[in-house]
Amino acid sequence: MELDIQTARRIIAVALETGQARAMKPLSVVVLDAGGHPIAFERADGASPGRFEIARGKAYGAVMLGMGGRAQAERAAVGPTFMAAVNGAFGGRLVPVPGGVLVRDQGGRVIGAVGVTGDTSDNDAVAALAGIESVGLTGEA
Amino acid sequence: MELDIQTARRIIAVALETGQARAMKPLSVVVLDAGGHPIAFERADGASPGRFEIARGKAYGAVMLGMGGRAQAERAAVGPTFMAAVNGAFGGRLVPVPGGVLVRDQGGRVIGAVGVTGDTSDNDAVAALAGIESVGLTGEA
Amino acid sequence: MELDIQTARRIIAVALETGQARAMKPLSVVVLDAGGHPIAFERADGASPGRFEIARGKAYGAVMLGMGGRAQAERAAVGPTFMAAVNGAFGGRLVPVPGGVLVRDQGGRVIGAVGVTGDTSDNDAVAALAGIESVGLTGEA
Amino acid sequence: MELDIQTARRIIAVALETGQARAMKPLSVVVLDAGGHPIAFERADGASPGRFEIARGKAYGAVMLGMGGRAQAERAAVGPTFMAAVNGAFGGRLVPVPGGVLVRDQGGRVIGAVGVTGDTSDNDAVAALAGIESVGLTGEA
Repeated sequence: MELDIQTARRIIAVALETGQARAMKPLSVVVLDAGGHPIAFERADGASPGRFEIARGKAYGAVMLGMGGRAQAERAAVGPTFMAAVNGAFGGRLVPVPGGVLVRDQGGRVIGAVGVTGDTSDNDAVAALAGIESVGLTGEA
Repeated sequence: MELDIQTARRIIAVALETGQARAMKPLSVVVLDAGGHPIAFERADGASPGRFEIARGKAYGAVMLGMGGRAQAERAAVGPTFMAAVNGAFGGRLVPVPGGVLVRDQGGRVIGAVGVTGDTSDNDAVAALAGIESVGLTGEA
Repeated sequence: MELDIQTARRIIAVALETGQARAMKPLSVVVLDAGGHPIAFERADGASPGRFEIARGKAYGAVMLGMGGRAQAERAAVGPTFMAAVNGAFGGRLVPVPGGVLVRDQGGRVIGAVGVTGDTSDNDAVAALAGIESVGLTGEA
Repeated sequence: MELDIQTARRIIAVALETGQARAMKPLSVVVLDAGGHPIAFERADGASPGRFEIARGKAYGAVMLGMGGRAQAERAAVGPTFMAAVNGAFGGRLVPVPGGVLVRDQGGRVIGAVGVTGDTSDNDAVAALAGIESVGLTGEA
């Protein structure tokens, strides 16, 4: 299975709605495919202009390393030098914190990732997971 | 006036519909704000994975230089060295061809740009203009 | 279908053998997945050290733009400024010449690309196609 | 002596087999020459797509600095600012942790490096060493 544009749109819509329903700050949400390339992105009104790079950095790291943002953050806490170096190997494009969530299909295969930014990293991850689960897929934060 | 997410969504929807109605190849569409930063992006199913960078490059050049992609291409034809040097100053991120379209409000002020890629550059521009005009704004190709 | 490591190994082996059988210069061959990421690479003895970047650049452009190296070269011949600018949008990593060959599965879907470098670009493409066809897949040069 | 493609292939095969025999996660293995340039690379099925950059970063640092990944990690622990600055001088491409292993010939001369990634850094180094020793060479982790 691949993430198509209709699924990506739905993930984004539910993630943004989740943010509003829980009174989070304005969120920005990107959906990447299994190769780390953008399918869709939306930045809510009121969010700061640099949110695309942050959202993509969260989701990109998840795809490239095969682990969610929370797992990356834990790895970075144990070995900050390691994670900084890994990030350098990707031109500094990774943002290894919660809010980058791997997307797995019913068979457990990674088919992409969602990156959310705008509120606390933990809230960002909540919104991402809500979006992913709304389309019957599994998120790995 | 600023481009909000609802307007950006509508521009993208109409640009994609225009592509389908005219039997273009699958399009990808980005909407940038007046600072050249992404508000929204969608890549139609079947488009190649690298389309975000191209769409953004078209729209980014339009915003940063204050002229549409067609005007940039004409400038590049007359002074290719100049345009290459300008592009270098932006880290090579500009794609100065039709399909990057400035968005002006009723007062003529630049409020962002739309970048479309996937079909011929001229068709890309047609789809971008259709999206921009559908929300009562003015596109400058 | 996805390209697995066994298939990638076989593609590389046949591409290298094709080069030797036809008395080409020492070849280097990379196989990328559908997201443009390396699965396998080999550089034949006697090839110059920089061959990985060239092989990857050929295959990476094929994946990201959805067209083989020959199609890219033709596009570059018509619009050199366009192709140079597109390359800049990808950080200069594309090498838009023959020898970058898209790999399609039986259903016509792009599942990766092969990049070959070392001899003339046309011979590079011959070796890539031989490797791809040896595993029952379709190459698009 | 130089590392040739046949030796590189054998190192990779044994490193991957070692990972499987010890129930490690799917590994990725690169072999670089004495100039830090790729001779061969393989990514096992199931590994995340970004593994080439990490494997190369480990081996590249080993070659460029003339010390294995473990020695680099120890140096980074004592002088993190120094190591970060050195890494910056190489454009951030070094990944100074175990799993990057220098390869020395019988005379003690550095003839390349092996980079392994996928499991814990220590296990990665075990797999790299097994590969190097299988061809009668000496690894320096």
